[in-house]
Amino acid sequence: MRKILASAVGLAILLLYLAASFTSGVGSRPAQEVSLSSETGECLECHELYTPGIVADWRTSLHARTTPDAAMTKDSLARRVSAESVPEKLRGTAVGCYECHGLNPDAHKDGFEHEGYKISVVISPKDCATCHPQEEREYGGGKKAHALDNLRKNPVYDLLVEDATSVKHVSERCGIAAASATAASKGAACYACHGTEVGVEGMKTVEAYDGTEMQVPALTNWPNQGVGRINPDGALGACTACHPRHSFSIEVARKPYTCLQCHLNPDVPGWEVFRESKHGNILMSLQTEWEWKNVPWVPGSDFKAPSCAACHSSLLVNTDREVLAQRTHDFGARLYVRLFGVIYSHPQPTSGATHMIVNADGLPLATSFDGRPAAEYLIDGKEAEQRRQTLISVCRACHGTSWAQGHFQQLEAVIADTDAAVLAATRMMQYAWENGLADNKHPFDEALEKKWVAQWLFYANSVRYAAAMSGPDYAAFKNGWWHLTDTLQQMREAIKLKEGLKK
Amino acid sequence: MRKILASAVGLAILLLYLAASFTSGVGSRPAQEVSLSSETGECLECHELYTPGIVADWRTSLHARTTPDAAMTKDSLARRVSAESVPEKLRGTAVGCYECHGLNPDAHKDGFEHEGYKISVVISPKDCATCHPQEEREYGGGKKAHALDNLRKNPVYDLLVEDATSVKHVSERCGIAAASATAASKGAACYACHGTEVGVEGMKTVEAYDGTEMQVPALTNWPNQGVGRINPDGALGACTACHPRHSFSIEVARKPYTCLQCHLNPDVPGWEVFRESKHGNILMSLQTEWEWKNVPWVPGSDFKAPSCAACHSSLLVNTDREVLAQRTHDFGARLYVRLFGVIYSHPQPTSGATHMIVNADGLPLATSFDGRPAAEYLIDGKEAEQRRQTLISVCRACHGTSWAQGHFQQLEAVIADTDAAVLAATRMMQYAWENGLADNKHPFDEALEKKWVAQWLFYANSVRYAAAMSGPDYAAFKNGWWHLTDTLQQMREAIKLKEGLKK
Amino acid sequence: MRKILASAVGLAILLLYLAASFTSGVGSRPAQEVSLSSETGECLECHELYTPGIVADWRTSLHARTTPDAAMTKDSLARRVSAESVPEKLRGTAVGCYECHGLNPDAHKDGFEHEGYKISVVISPKDCATCHPQEEREYGGGKKAHALDNLRKNPVYDLLVEDATSVKHVSERCGIAAASATAASKGAACYACHGTEVGVEGMKTVEAYDGTEMQVPALTNWPNQGVGRINPDGALGACTACHPRHSFSIEVARKPYTCLQCHLNPDVPGWEVFRESKHGNILMSLQTEWEWKNVPWVPGSDFKAPSCAACHSSLLVNTDREVLAQRTHDFGARLYVRLFGVIYSHPQPTSGATHMIVNADGLPLATSFDGRPAAEYLIDGKEAEQRRQTLISVCRACHGTSWAQGHFQQLEAVIADTDAAVLAATRMMQYAWENGLADNKHPFDEALEKKWVAQWLFYANSVRYAAAMSGPDYAAFKNGWWHLTDTLQQMREAIKLKEGLKK
Repeated sequence: MRKILASAVGLAILLLYLAASFTSGVGSRPAQEVSLSSETGECLECHELYTPGIVADWRTSLHARTTPDAAMTKDSLARRVSAESVPEKLRGTAVGCYECHGLNPDAHKDGFEHEGYKISVVISPKDCATCHPQEEREYGGGKKAHALDNLRKNPVYDLLVEDATSVKHVSERCGIAAASATAASKGAACYACHGTEVGVEGMKTVEAYDGTEMQVPALTNWPNQGVGRINPDGALGACTACHPRHSFSIEVARKPYTCLQCHLNPDVPGWEVFRESKHGNILMSLQTEWEWKNVPWVPGSDFKAPSCAACHSSLLVNTDREVLAQRTHDFGARLYVRLFGVIYSHPQPTSGATHMIVNADGLPLATSFDGRPAAEYLIDGKEAEQRRQTLISVCRACHGTSWAQGHFQQLEAVIADTDAAVLAATRMMQYAWENGLADNKHPFDEALEKKWVAQWLFYANSVRYAAAMSGPDYAAFKNGWWHLTDTLQQMREAIKLKEGLKK
Repeated sequence: MRKILASAVGLAILLLYLAASFTSGVGSRPAQEVSLSSETGECLECHELYTPGIVADWRTSLHARTTPDAAMTKDSLARRVSAESVPEKLRGTAVGCYECHGLNPDAHKDGFEHEGYKISVVISPKDCATCHPQEEREYGGGKKAHALDNLRKNPVYDLLVEDATSVKHVSERCGIAAASATAASKGAACYACHGTEVGVEGMKTVEAYDGTEMQVPALTNWPNQGVGRINPDGALGACTACHPRHSFSIEVARKPYTCLQCHLNPDVPGWEVFRESKHGNILMSLQTEWEWKNVPWVPGSDFKAPSCAACHSSLLVNTDREVLAQRTHDFGARLYVRLFGVIYSHPQPTSGATHMIVNADGLPLATSFDGRPAAEYLIDGKEAEQRRQTLISVCRACHGTSWAQGHFQQLEAVIADTDAAVLAATRMMQYAWENGLADNKHPFDEALEKKWVAQWLFYANSVRYAAAMSGPDYAAFKNGWWHLTDTLQQMREAIKLKEGLKK
Repeated sequence: MRKILASAVGLAILLLYLAASFTSGVGSRPAQEVSLSSETGECLECHELYTPGIVADWRTSLHARTTPDAAMTKDSLARRVSAESVPEKLRGTAVGCYECHGLNPDAHKDGFEHEGYKISVVISPKDCATCHPQEEREYGGGKKAHALDNLRKNPVYDLLVEDATSVKHVSERCGIAAASATAASKGAACYACHGTEVGVEGMKTVEAYDGTEMQVPALTNWPNQGVGRINPDGALGACTACHPRHSFSIEVARKPYTCLQCHLNPDVPGWEVFRESKHGNILMSLQTEWEWKNVPWVPGSDFKAPSCAACHSSLLVNTDREVLAQRTHDFGARLYVRLFGVIYSHPQPTSGATHMIVNADGLPLATSFDGRPAAEYLIDGKEAEQRRQTLISVCRACHGTSWAQGHFQQLEAVIADTDAAVLAATRMMQYAWENGLADNKHPFDEALEKKWVAQWLFYANSVRYAAAMSGPDYAAFKNGWWHLTDTLQQMREAIKLKEGLKK
């Protein structure tokens, strides 16, 4: 009799648990509570009401549901804290408000006194490195961390940015004069992805939710979540660019919607090409049935088609837990060729700080104007082949060797064709410069020059992306081969008209 | 013993209920049946078979699962019927076929006798106002309800519509002559979103599903679901533009896929900018886990990132049920600046009937050709500041005050830059008109004029939308700053060629 | 007492079953195991580890969970094996690796010896026809199966392909010379959708997963999954273009993400127009709640808005299981008008091999240069009307007769307008050719000619698609009427400049 009762009670508990799982909302509290630090407890007392969205989001995070001590007991494949040791004070509680916003107070120009605590506003990769040092190291070595200086310290790129985003004034005689681009327009455009340099200009008074006044740091170029943000503590990058606050979800970062914030047509059409590929089709059709949070991640059983993260970043294992690809937060680390050509494709650079490159023309570009690579700043053939094999081994989880090899051979042939298409437009541009039909003192500002820029920055890149990820339309009609040919003919036509008028 | 049995039976019932919840399909009948009117019951007898999709969709609606009487017992925050009283006859039954299609028979030019009942085809906001008068009132005061007349009664806009959508004939000597645009092409293009004027031209015979003949009203400019549709009863608007028939789902209306039907690049790139924003990323990554039907709606616990509706329309409360923003069906009511510039940005108009505006040039546009606002038709600074604070209070559910303020400061600086970019192109256009290089009798029909139109209608708008919702690419390369500069240079080039030929 | 125990045990089993259903992952094994052939069992022994993604995907397929014998017991509406009989050897086991890759060994140029078995790499529609002959027959009669020859055997289309995808060389005097397009660039662009001709050039050595060497066929133009792929066994098409390997899911094929791989703007904007339509809105808002696998498929109760498949392919029945539309794998079979105009719209062709058409100009195009249809190759008015009624009967599951009729009347009026817009541009192009302003020896290669091509290939098509599926923006500003008018004005402007220079 007792057994029956026990069974019934057990069933009831199981039922209630199941019911709870189905009805638990987005912001529900975790099943197992972990203890909070007293500081975080105090933060929550006010912020639960004042910024309820932040708190609700954080409550669904792994940070809120585990402790560094518990996280460090995981085996090496499942472990997500890469630090060998974590400061004593942080180990036993959830990673809450104060655990992050109270870190490294002396390094933070944006630190301030808030309700008795010294906290800072902008958490940087250096702060996250307290528990995740390997991720910070990898990220810091890649192009993303250096994305701001790679634009503004490279005079060629900086000229492109300034020319595009500056307000122009038109004179009575119809001349065009450009003002300097404003911080706001650069911040909304190029620097929205590349990152701004966030500064601190003293303190300012804001009105809090309850109407009281409060002193907070007056930040400049803020808000910004670009991948190369330069933070008030001097650290490079923003982990929140891909792991949005305050759940810092691995699921969100693994979904293509994260990458698409910046990897968009016309210059880097990662998302659009993916979406029109077979991989994109399968992902969009079946994504709600997949396991997006498993670590390590198993192609086939966890997901049926790779998202961006699967090929470029995540730790992948096969069903026997043999590693197919190691995790990396340097998103260029698995790549051998850089599709993004300024102005031609080339082997990946060895350092993420591409503004340090010097090519045969003396410019910080990976190839010279006639296509010679700045070899000493780029990976060599051996490294390239090794990375190529890493990529192929990812493909082979779901494709035969012959398929995977064929794919890369096709890609390489298409890349060569697109480089030839860029060369053709470049020769035409040179003809115009040499014959006084355009002025190369500023190589990007005239209508004809902008057609030439579009040839390499939009159309050649699009065809290469399309070939790399098997998206058909971006190789054909949508910023693809159609445009490579059309633009060349348009340039020819414009040159003919200019020559005709000159006579 | 009896208790055990009772427990077991209770468990079984719970199980069956759970099982039923999981297996119930899209069109399943509701758990609690509410009674139907006899008229609706009769409708269903045939239409269950003849238009099964309509009936199945309606069955999943709240209309089918509750009664006005029950709906009116909800507390003020949860209540969705805004009428203080509902006609006696409608109170006690589900809101079925006849309850809507049988309303206001005398007002409906599209009314007709059908199987013994007088019903009408096109349900209008006036009909919906029987239970939802506040929604109809708010909607009727906004720009959407007036969207058709705002186009056709504004001669500037009407010229744009006619020039774009009319068939052209090319003469033997290569001249272009435009015919009048057809109702069909205007209806498929501009009026698809803005709405058509639906007319009734007598009755016509159609063959019903079972082969019998039937007399129905012969409607013109039909079908159409534009936001400013003028209905046969004279009422303005179509609730079904956002709440599609016949489930009239709040979930669908709250999802961005509804707004994207019309708010698309190149002129009003709301969807594309949202999609490439952090908000869009989070929504697309996690949307299937959110509570889309809760009223009121709680940021953080119901959803983690706002859809269009959250910022522009829905009733939002915090976790203490304190109101963050009141519901409104005037979708401009929370906005202080109108990004959509014809030809410059400006404060929001005070009335949704923008064709009534008269600016300094005597035209129905909110700014003059040189940028002076038609102030008496626009909200004043005090109202603007109040709306700005409403928006900030929505942001502050998930963002600190400093973040939210910084966002709007950046936006305002970018808006100023885009207005300057429009001014530059406008000065160039004026130069062309004044020097006989273009003819401003029709200001939109020549190739050069169309470049100028693109500058304000596509590119300046795109940059402003991008800055307003933090989507990077539409501020940069995708119809953004790149194009603002490129178009100006193209205009300069075209003017130079025309001048050169003239000499 | 025993009964109570039995009930409790029953409940527990039910609970465990429910729990199992909820926790079973993407690649979980089926609940009911069916027996595998010994050959397939042997395949799996290695491939479970070597290509785990393929095996995990296949395990979720219907092929893995049923046998042809069981499949053939279904009633005619639910049955998915269309063969009247299936070879004895295949009937009793799951459809595994060997059941497909071991088929028709003598027909396969890509057959090879692999671990003691003769298998082939590229499974063709002829192989699938073993169980699905009706699907193969329908598909083979349509345009998709002939998509490669329809391009390369039609000299007009072939010229377009070659001109667009070939590398150009620019001479010192700024002339343009085109090389032949490479197989790789054609394969990444046009042929990615249309299909390549897959060849076999002997055998090659690849390194298998475990490091051993292995001989496999050396395939050319591989990988490719275009709809008109010509396979090594000579069969036309790739079932995997829409049913991706190795789950061959009906759910994936029914979702619009499959069709969007190729039906994209600017030439055939099926996806973009659908997405901005009411149907697209409803599907994207509610798709996760729908029944995507039911056969037959019931509008209203299985889904609330049609995907591409619902209107163009799937077997649809009403709630009484009365057939609304028969299944077809000829995706043009329900259509009466061909929107895709080269250069005008026209009735659907009677045969999928459109390169066999001869028009009044002697060219393999469905209309002559001045718009006369090549009637003997196109369906007649009676067939057109019958197909129009089939489409309307699909609409009427959710729309009244008057609505559905009005829709098609509007569409037909818009089509007439777009054909007139193409005629206008064509007359202008003729003017340029006749007056020596362009050279029609190659009608597509000059800048002016490309504007003319864009008029019919991009803008007229877009407006027609938009009118057909009620997407507003592609009729208006996005490659729509705005562009039809703008392009005509740009052509006029270019002609004026050329004439001016000539004088």
